[in-house]
This record gives sequence, structure tokens and C-alpha cells, in this order.
Amino acid sequence: MRMYDIIYKKRMGKPLTKEEIDFFIDGYCKGTIPDYQASALLMAICINSMTREETLCLTEAMLNSGDRVDLSAIDGVCADKHSTGGVGDKTTLIVAPIVASLGINVAKMSGRGLGFTGGTVDKLESIKGYRATLSTDEFLNTVKSIGICVTGQSGNLTPADKKLYALRDVTATVDSIPLIASSIMSKKLASGADTIVLDVKTGNGAFMKSLEDSCTLAEAMVDIGKGFNKNIRALVTDMSSPLGYFVGNSLEVYEAVSVLKGKSHSDLYELCIELSASIASSSLSLPYERSREMCIENVKNGKAYSKMEEWISAQGGDISYLQSPEKLLSSPIKVEYISKMSGYVSEIHAESVGIASMLLGAGRRTKEDKIDLYAGIELRVKKGDRVNIGDTLAILYTSDENAITPCKNTLDASFEFSESRTEPSELIYSIIK
Amino acid sequence: MRMYDIIYKKRMGKPLTKEEIDFFIDGYCKGTIPDYQASALLMAICINSMTREETLCLTEAMLNSGDRVDLSAIDGVCADKHSTGGVGDKTTLIVAPIVASLGINVAKMSGRGLGFTGGTVDKLESIKGYRATLSTDEFLNTVKSIGICVTGQSGNLTPADKKLYALRDVTATVDSIPLIASSIMSKKLASGADTIVLDVKTGNGAFMKSLEDSCTLAEAMVDIGKGFNKNIRALVTDMSSPLGYFVGNSLEVYEAVSVLKGKSHSDLYELCIELSASIASSSLSLPYERSREMCIENVKNGKAYSKMEEWISAQGGDISYLQSPEKLLSSPIKVEYISKMSGYVSEIHAESVGIASMLLGAGRRTKEDKIDLYAGIELRVKKGDRVNIGDTLAILYTSDENAITPCKNTLDASFEFSESRTEPSELIYSIIK
Repeated sequence: MRMYDIIYKKRMGKPLTKEEIDFFIDGYCKGTIPDYQASALLMAICINSMTREETLCLTEAMLNSGDRVDLSAIDGVCADKHSTGGVGDKTTLIVAPIVASLGINVAKMSGRGLGFTGGTVDKLESIKGYRATLSTDEFLNTVKSIGICVTGQSGNLTPADKKLYALRDVTATVDSIPLIASSIMSKKLASGADTIVLDVKTGNGAFMKSLEDSCTLAEAMVDIGKGFNKNIRALVTDMSSPLGYFVGNSLEVYEAVSVLKGKSHSDLYELCIELSASIASSSLSLPYERSREMCIENVKNGKAYSKMEEWISAQGGDISYLQSPEKLLSSPIKVEYISKMSGYVSEIHAESVGIASMLLGAGRRTKEDKIDLYAGIELRVKKGDRVNIGDTLAILYTSDENAITPCKNTLDASFEFSESRTEPSELIYSIIK
Repeated sequence: MRMYDIIYKKRMGKPLTKEEIDFFIDGYCKGTIPDYQASALLMAICINSMTREETLCLTEAMLNSGDRVDLSAIDGVCADKHSTGGVGDKTTLIVAPIVASLGINVAKMSGRGLGFTGGTVDKLESIKGYRATLSTDEFLNTVKSIGICVTGQSGNLTPADKKLYALRDVTATVDSIPLIASSIMSKKLASGADTIVLDVKTGNGAFMKSLEDSCTLAEAMVDIGKGFNKNIRALVTDMSSPLGYFVGNSLEVYEAVSVLKGKSHSDLYELCIELSASIASSSLSLPYERSREMCIENVKNGKAYSKMEEWISAQGGDISYLQSPEKLLSSPIKVEYISKMSGYVSEIHAESVGIASMLLGAGRRTKEDKIDLYAGIELRVKKGDRVNIGDTLAILYTSDENAITPCKNTLDASFEFSESRTEPSELIYSIIK
């Protein structure tokens, strides 16, 4: 078998066999297939796509390239949740303790943020003492004892995906549905959960801007999950505006705590209830409505919040940050961003709010960048709200005063106003299972 | 400007600007753009193609990447001829002295052979003493004094093309019309001739197997030549059967000498007259028919043959090889290949005759292979000839007796026979100017 022939076959739009895909992934990992041949094949895949069978084979080949987390020692169902990433998306911080409070194990490996979308691990590290780098044994023991653990990726999971992603990132071959679907799903499958709920974001603040592409991606991933006998569903959800009111690492933990304490009932709360109910209904084989009621109940009665305290404490975090969450809003500089317009807020562009927050120090432009865990933006309004000139639209949190002017300029382009009230976007466009 | 954005643009099927193409070629030559980005772009070009303007810009960028031969010191018109390569294609050896005998300068840089098609320089080196590696000064002085010189490529012509071609060769991105056209034409333009005649081969023994693709390639190259104000035309000619009767380096020189001595009037002779007439008519601004008569005349009266002696002698070659050309058929082993069938020869597959000849030692499988300049195949029949069982179909010339059986097996699949006579293929399918 020759890599040349595999490239040529895909160039001509023909489907590759399992043996050809295995040959490629194996050779690329070992270094016998050079980057320049891999990137030619990736480009041919981007333009000519892959069939369902090819995508399954690619996922399996990447899955088999490294270790797999063995969750078999854990009693009961293990659930995982994955979001394709968005601005203000702190749902894992809320969904994980809700479902864990219902007796469903959450054994989650999460990533760090890059660009204007934050990573769950970065957010959690804004809580003093929180340890996000656990050994596999520590990870499994924590899940066994309290039913929840969220750590950075440990072990050698899907090395083929890591190597390929680095190449895609510099060869304009990232946004291909079979490549994205197999990349995400190989990682999810390697993490070993039985139930997987995917939150596929759509809109300007998402990786997938169009609803059609987002639904196609969701379908491709659900299809792969089913091919591996997983209990899987995907929600396609709005990311045209930031989710909730807070964007930035410690600020998002603050908002998550508010939701779990029953103090916040925004779009964020609604989405977290739907995601939690999806996991609960899949994991416990209960009707969706009953699962939903149980999730709402466990927020109301404080069980979900207690589970968060238990979780953060088990991973070394200082729970005074949960008990007195205003500690998470202690950035040295806080500046108001004032409206120059009157009217109804008709758009708050998620992507540009994300960029504005990154400018304040909350995000990484490159993998090497250090982030300011206490920087970010607190929105004071949501789409559909009425504002007058001089009203506070947002509070900027930063430790870099030079960032304030560029951030404000970016926010000027983030807000739109209209004379009549615009309805907020739908929160959930589609559920694929 | 970022290479990433250029790759993405072509991936989306959008045309690149001159600045973007220059940025790519310049950066790739300098090494600031890595192979893996170049190969991704090449694949996107192969699948999404390039416009006429893009192809012109790519040609110009490659042309400007290196030196150009300056023929301005030579009086009169300088002509060049290029063939896309075929089996038994020794036309340069015949056309060059014919047109030089008419007073048209031939300043030709030629390549070596790879695979089953031979290179003109290899063929000439079968004449004892012939020097194919001349300095630029020697090259120009030879043209000035006798109006003809054929050398291997000297100087640093189109280094971008060389580097890109090596990458295309291992990433399945060779057979793209804009990439082939710009590669050939950048080299032709760098060689500095005023008149260019292209012989674009079509059929199983050619690089382009289909007539449609061959015509498209010919049109693309003529279009580029016109864009650079060259006097250019292309003949699309048959390469389903070998050209002439001889395949292999010294054997082809033998046949060329026979044609120039007026002793052979096969398809080879016909094609050489047409190619020579095309060059003469373009270069001397004469009607085609008049040019054709002049070419035929100069073969008949021996002027073309005398020019060949003058040329070979000027480049150090021993002209006793022209005077007694049987010296070129002095391979140690000569074996007859006998017909097992009776009937009319309906096909002689060019590609497999080329492979059979390579097996005897006449071609290179890799760039490092040494070739046996005296190995090859003499066909004794052409398409349409009547044969009986036991007739000699070919003579095999080699110095490797182990090559004979595999060669004969290959030839068994090269010949086809029919009960009724099949007309030979058309020699020239199209003339594009």
C-alpha cells in the first residue's frame, strides 16, 4: 500500500477503505508518512468529503492510536458532555453537579481554551487550589468516591488526533465535518463514558456559523456514537449571543454558582436544565419530562450546589470561593461600559464579545499566552432589553488598563439597537438522537 | 499576507490574485513556506483548478524565480520545440537540423528521460564524445556560429518549478492542467526562444491519455505563450503506438539519421515535417505550404543531414556514428521477437512497448538508475501490417540476458491482431495557435 495512491484516490473523490485509513493514521503517527503527504490528503478530504463509513473508520483509527480510559471499575452509568465551544459557555460547571446529584457518574476530561472560547479547566483553576492535573488513578478514585471529577486530559489519548489537528490548524483544513466529527468523537470514545450528550453551538460565536452545518455536524457525531454503541444525543443550540451574563474564567464560575444556588434563571439556566435532563433521561432510562423535573428539583433543594462543593473540595479547591462567590469578581480594574444609544438591544454579537473579553486578558491568542483568570465582561443587558443613553451595558474586569480602550471599541461593534423589541433567538434549534 | 488564508481561499474555489501567487512562490523558494502548506495548496489547485489569469501569474512567478537565458546576442529568430513525451519520440533529433538548415536558430535545452519515455540528451549521449553539459557561453557561441545547439539544462532556470515538481511527484498532484502548463511554459519562457512549437502527445503512451485533456493542456500552454508575446503553436499528436520503428536511445539516433538521409518515410518522417513546417512558417512568416515544401526539400537535398553532422561535430560528437549509423545498433545481445499469431496488426500499445524497452535497460525507473544507451526495441511492423505466425515482430537489443523473458512477456500484451485491416490512427488530431 502506498500513501501516494491513497491521496490520489481521495483526490478523485473515491471512498477510502478501512485498511487505507488505518495505513494513513498508523504511518502518520509513526512518522513514516510525512506532513506534506498528510496535508495533501487532508485537503482532498476537506474538498471531496468522506462517507459515513470512512468517518467511522477514521474515528476508530484515531481512537486506537492511543490509550483509552477504563471506567469499568466504576459502578453505575458514566456520563460525558461535550460542547463545541462558545462565548460564556460555562454549562459543564452547572450540568456536571446537577447530574452527579442524581447519582449519575461524571468522569470528564476537559480541555483548555484557545482564542475567544474558554476552556472548562481554565475556569476551574480560577478557584484557588483546584487541581486540574490528576493521575488516572486519582481521577478514577475521585469518581468512585463522590461520583464526579473534572480534569485536564491525562494519559496518551488519541495522539493521532493531536498530531493531525496541529497540521490541520496550519493548512486551512480545520472546518471539515468528517474531520471535526471524527476528532471530537475519537476523544469522547477514548474517555470511556456510556452516555454522551453533545452541545453543538451554532451562530457567529460558534465554530460552525450556519445552522445547516451545525446540524450536519451533530448528525455525523451522533452517527459515530451509535456506531460504537453509545447512548448519545446532540442538542444544536444558539451561539449568536453570549450564553448568560458573564464571559471570562472566574466570572463564569461566579455565574455557575449563582445558577446552582437558584439565583439566576437566564438562558444559561434553561440550557443547563435541558442538557442535564438529556443526560439523566439517557442514563437512567427515564422519560424526558420526569428527568427534567428531577434536575430542576435538585437545583431548588440545593443538592446540585452541595455536589459542586463536594466536587471542588475533592479536587483541592477552596470552597470559600463558592460560599462567597464575590471573591471571583475581584479583578483590580472594573470599568463600566455605557450605552451611547437608546432603544431595544437587538443583537449582542457573541464572537465580538468573546474577542473583547480576550483583549481584557481572558483568552489566549496563541497556545503559549498566559491568561488573566479574573479578566472578563459582565453583561448587564440581554437581547430584547430596553436601554437608554447612559445606561450601563457591561462591566469590564481586567488588570491591564491599556486593554480598556480597544475592548470598548470592540464592544461598540458588538451591540445593535432597534426601535421595536426583537425576540431573543431560540435557545435550542434541534435535538438529534 | 498569510499562506493559511491563500490555502483557504483556493480550498473554497476562489481565484488567487497575482500578489498571493507571488507570495506563495517566493516564500516556497525561500523556505519560509513549508512543504506541508505548499502540498495543501497544490491539492486544492488540483481539485478546484485555476483560471487563465491565475495560470499566467503562476507561470510568471516561476519564471521569475530563477535565471533566464538571454538570446538577444543571436542574430535572427530563435526557435524551440517541446514534446510532452512519448515512446519512440526522437523528433527533436530530426526537426532541429531541418529548421536550422533553413537558417532558423535552434537554441534548445533538453531534459533527461524518466520512466518509459526517453530524454533527448540521453539519446545524443549514445554518440561517442557528444557533450550535453555546456556552459551558457559555450551554448550561446555554438548557436551563434552554426545556428544550432542542444544541451542539458544549465544555469538556475525556474528553481521554483523544480522544487514544486519534486513535491507534486510525491503528493499525487502532478496531473493538473494549470500546474503542468505553467511548469512546462515557465521552463520554455526561461529558455528565451521567440518561436515555440509544442508537440502535445495523446494516447496510452502519453502523459495525457485522453484527447480532450491533451487539447485542453495544449490550449492552456498556447494561451500562456501568447500572454508572453511568443510566437507559439501546439500540435496534438498520436501516442497510442510508438512513433517510428525504433525505441531506445542509440536506436532512436539511428532512425533519426535514416530519416535525415531520406531513407525512412514512416509516421515519424511525416510528423517531423509537420513540426518543422510549423516552426518555419511561424519563424519566417511564410505560408505553411511553402514552409513544408522547404523542409521536404532540405531533407531531399541533404542540407538537413549536413546540418546534423555540423551540429554533432560542434558538440564533440564522433560523426562516424552518423556516417556509419549501424554502429548505433551494436548492442551485444540481439534477439528476435516472433509472432504467435496471424492477421493484421491492430494495436501496438505505446506504453507497454515503452515498458518493455525499459526492461531491456533503455529507461530509468528512478532518477538514480543508470541506463544502457544501446538497449531498446526495433519494431519490424506497424499498425495495419499483415503478419503470419513465425514472422519477426521486433528485435530486442540489450546487454542483460535476464531481461529478455520479462520483455517478451510484456510485448505479448503489447500487440493485438485482427482478421481485417485496421487503419492506422490519425497522426495529428489538432493544431492550436
